[in-house]
Order: sequence, then C-alpha cells, then structure tokens
Amino acid sequence: MSRSGGTGAAIGAVPLRIALDQGTAPGGDPRGALTRLAGVARAAAEAGARLLVGPEMSLTGYNIGADVARLAEPSDGPVAREVGRIAAETGVAIAYGYPESDGGRIYNAVQLVGAAGAPLAGYRKAHLFGELDRAAYSPGDDPVVQATLGGLRLGMLICYDVEFPEAVRAHALSGTELLLVPTALMHPHTGIATSLVPARAFESQLYIAYVNRCDTEGELDYCGSSCLVAPGGTELLRAGAGEELLVADVDPTVLRTARRDNTYLADRRPGLYAALTEPGSG
Amino acid sequence: MSRSGGTGAAIGAVPLRIALDQGTAPGGDPRGALTRLAGVARAAAEAGARLLVGPEMSLTGYNIGADVARLAEPSDGPVAREVGRIAAETGVAIAYGYPESDGGRIYNAVQLVGAAGAPLAGYRKAHLFGELDRAAYSPGDDPVVQATLGGLRLGMLICYDVEFPEAVRAHALSGTELLLVPTALMHPHTGIATSLVPARAFESQLYIAYVNRCDTEGELDYCGSSCLVAPGGTELLRAGAGEELLVADVDPTVLRTARRDNTYLADRRPGLYAALTEPGSG
Repeated sequence: MSRSGGTGAAIGAVPLRIALDQGTAPGGDPRGALTRLAGVARAAAEAGARLLVGPEMSLTGYNIGADVARLAEPSDGPVAREVGRIAAETGVAIAYGYPESDGGRIYNAVQLVGAAGAPLAGYRKAHLFGELDRAAYSPGDDPVVQATLGGLRLGMLICYDVEFPEAVRAHALSGTELLLVPTALMHPHTGIATSLVPARAFESQLYIAYVNRCDTEGELDYCGSSCLVAPGGTELLRAGAGEELLVADVDPTVLRTARRDNTYLADRRPGLYAALTEPGSG
Repeated sequence: MSRSGGTGAAIGAVPLRIALDQGTAPGGDPRGALTRLAGVARAAAEAGARLLVGPEMSLTGYNIGADVARLAEPSDGPVAREVGRIAAETGVAIAYGYPESDGGRIYNAVQLVGAAGAPLAGYRKAHLFGELDRAAYSPGDDPVVQATLGGLRLGMLICYDVEFPEAVRAHALSGTELLLVPTALMHPHTGIATSLVPARAFESQLYIAYVNRCDTEGELDYCGSSCLVAPGGTELLRAGAGEELLVADVDPTVLRTARRDNTYLADRRPGLYAALTEPGSG
C-alpha cells in the first residue's frame, strides 16, 4: 500500500489486490460487526490485499427495521472512525456499508476509507429497491462517486443500482476502472450475480467486485455468489453460498487490453440515446 | 393473421407465433435466397407462425465485399416486391436483411414486410461493427424503428446494435414488446448470444428474437445459437450450430406479468443519466 487519499504510483502501473468479504456479523450490533471486521481485515492484509470490500449494510445489517434510524450516523461518525483505525492498523483500505445520516435524511450508503484511516469517498444508493429500501432511506442523487487507490480509479454502486446498465455506463464513461458493488441479494435472484453482473462488466469494460451477504434476515435469505469479474467478462472470483474471504488482483494492464480489443465505449452513439434521459422515461 | 400494416385485434390480446430462420442461401445470389425464403415461409406458415425473421443480410450474404454495392437496392426495390409476394402467398410477415440504397448511401438494413405484402418498417443499423461494416455502409441515425403486428409492438435492431444497452433501452422506453435482431455473429463471440442477449431482454423487460447465420463466409465462421428470450430472461428457443427453423409464441400476457413483477423500467432515474448522451461520451 503506497498511499491513500489520492493517486498512488504511476497510474495503472501496478495490480491492486482486492479482498471480497462475503460475510457479516449478526445485524443490529455495529460493535460486534467491527470486531469481526478487524479480524477479516487482518486476514486480508496477510493475503496481501490492499482493499477490502464488504456487503451492503455490512456493519449494521440490512433488514433491521427501525434499527436503521437508531444506527444511522454521519460519514465521520464513530463507526467511520473505528473503521479508519482498523484500516490504519492493517494497511488495508476498507469499503463498508452503513445507514448514513446527514442530520435530516438517512441514506443507504457505502464509505471507502483509505489505508491511512481517512474517508476517501462516500456513495448513497440512487436506485432504491422495493418497499424495504423506500421505507428506510432517501435516494442518493450523485450517480458517479469515485476515488483513486493504488493508481486505480474506483467507483461505487450499491446492489440494485448495478442492475441498471445506465448506472454502470456512467461510471465507465467517467473513467471508473474498478466498480465496487456491496449488495444484499436474496434468493431466488441469484441470476443477477451470475448473469447480469458479468454482462455489466463486459458491456462497459470495467472490473466489478460484487460482494453479497450470505446470512438470513427475517424472510430474506441472501444467496452469496459474490464475484470479481474482469472487463472481458471473465469471472476471476466466484463465492459459494457461505462465509468466505476471496482475494484476487485487479490488473490495469488487463483492463487496457480489454478496452483496446473491445471498442464498445468508443462505438457508442450518444446522439441517439436522448430517450434515456427524458424525465418521463423512468 | 388478422391484418398487416397496422394494429391487429385488441392490443396484446393474442400471442404472436414467430419463426426464427437460422439459415441462409449462399451469398451474392438474391434469387437463390428468395427461392429458399419461399420454402421457409411455407414451412413457417404450416407451423402456424405469423412472423418469420431471418439473419443479418439474409438475402445477399454479409461478408460479400464489393457485391454490397452491386446488390444494394431501395426499400421498394425488386427484392422487397418479391418478399412481399412470398409474404402475401403464405400469410406470414417477413423480416429480412439486405443492403439498402437511398440513391446515394448504402445502409445495412432490415425490412419488415407485412402479410399483405407491403413494407411495414425499415431499420438501418446504427452501430457499425468494425472495418467490414464501416467499409461498406453508412450508419443509420434512427434509433427506434417500430411496427405493430398482430397487436404486438415490434422493434428492430441489427447485430452489434443489441450489444449496447442504450439501444435496447430506447426501444423498451418507446414501447417495443418484441425486438427483432437479425445478426451475423461469428466465433468466438458465442457469449453475446448466450449471455448478453438474455441480459438485454431481462434488464429492459421485452422479448428479443436474435436470429443468426450459421454458414461461413471467407474467414467468418458464424456461430448459430439463435434465440428467443422472454422478458424474464427465460430462453424460449435456442438453436444449435446448424440450419434450423424454430417456432414459439410471444405472449403479451407474459410480458405484462414480467413488467409488473420486475419494475426496472419504472425504477430508472433518468435525471442521473445525462453522461450517457454527452457528445464526447462515445
């Protein structure tokens, strides 16, 4: 880990080793989740990872009803500080999910904390999923949130967001090379993880790290199947149904080769896509 | 077949039986291709189909070099009239591929001829693929071309077009229920047919009929694998590697149920997608 909070070495020169944490502590107990996270971050560091990504609402639980309001905190709150301490101790940047409060509204958020312990970027889920999301959260309005880590341009989406090709395309057009997607995908929707996410990586020519829960919360039975997919559509990592820490390298050279061989981004016809932005179209 | 050239019975009331013609006559010989088409249209009619869809450049060949200019004709030219005659004789609407001349430019085009024998709509490929397309064709500039057949709203794209999520999304937003995609997909790109096309149908909640060639032309070895995919992502038809006539029903009730259960189109955030239409973004 060279530096955090900014550009690393020469852009795109060195692969970034990423760890996908398909696992969570029981919901409603951030303290227990932080204790678990510290152990996982140590394991990720031992595996040489410089970035650790967890599922949606990794530190609080997702289907936790009124606990959302109780556990929501600002992006520089106690949980952020504790994650920063873990990141600094292990030298691993950490992307974690939590309910973010801006003092008034609550968002379904992911924050990326650098290996020096300071927040690098925070993203608020823009495409809310069903009543569960809508009852608890306000939608975010910033479609592309990015940070640079180890010379690689990272972006973040959350769960349902990635199912919209527009959301991923906006990232690719803005230069995102590795898209982090914490998620809480449940049965019977495994096809999202196994078919749709690889299609997204292929069609928009970027890496996608899709990191799912594998527990159950009430009637929700999360389906695991976390993955890291390369821009060519190849699955570099694919988790099973249970708790798992997966590690692989994200290689900017592979990305450049993929974009040279597959010219989707250059062959687009933006002048023909006006219908996609019309107010009545969604 | 109730009527052609306009709306059929009550919109969406009756399934439309479609036949996918994965096959072509040798390139460069439209007369031979029309003779073959007449036989296929009779077989489609016997199977109860009301619509027959062939591959990209089905009546001329695709990789035919300078023959493109020799065989190009206007949308109401001799080939169109002959296809109209076959459609009227068999009572089957026909979508076929040909090089269209507007007197100056030549387009990679598909025309839909109604069962009464008159053209219903013509589409010109907007996303040209590689040097082969670019050397021979001008790009079309109309992203959404539609026609109504048997109460179902049909749209057309060609080959590479469908690989762009924006192109399919524009159709879904414009009401297309069944998207016809004549194609000329070659090895080693079978994944487009087996993975990307089903993702398109699922994410934009429409039927896609993707009809490929299965011959070889020069160095191009077409990979078959034509398919009809339902809005839920289910494959209703999937061809093998050789010549095949596949028949299935496109059911507007299934489409309505899929769109009710999966609210992708309603959950879009068009206000966040401005980057997709920026001139420099393609």
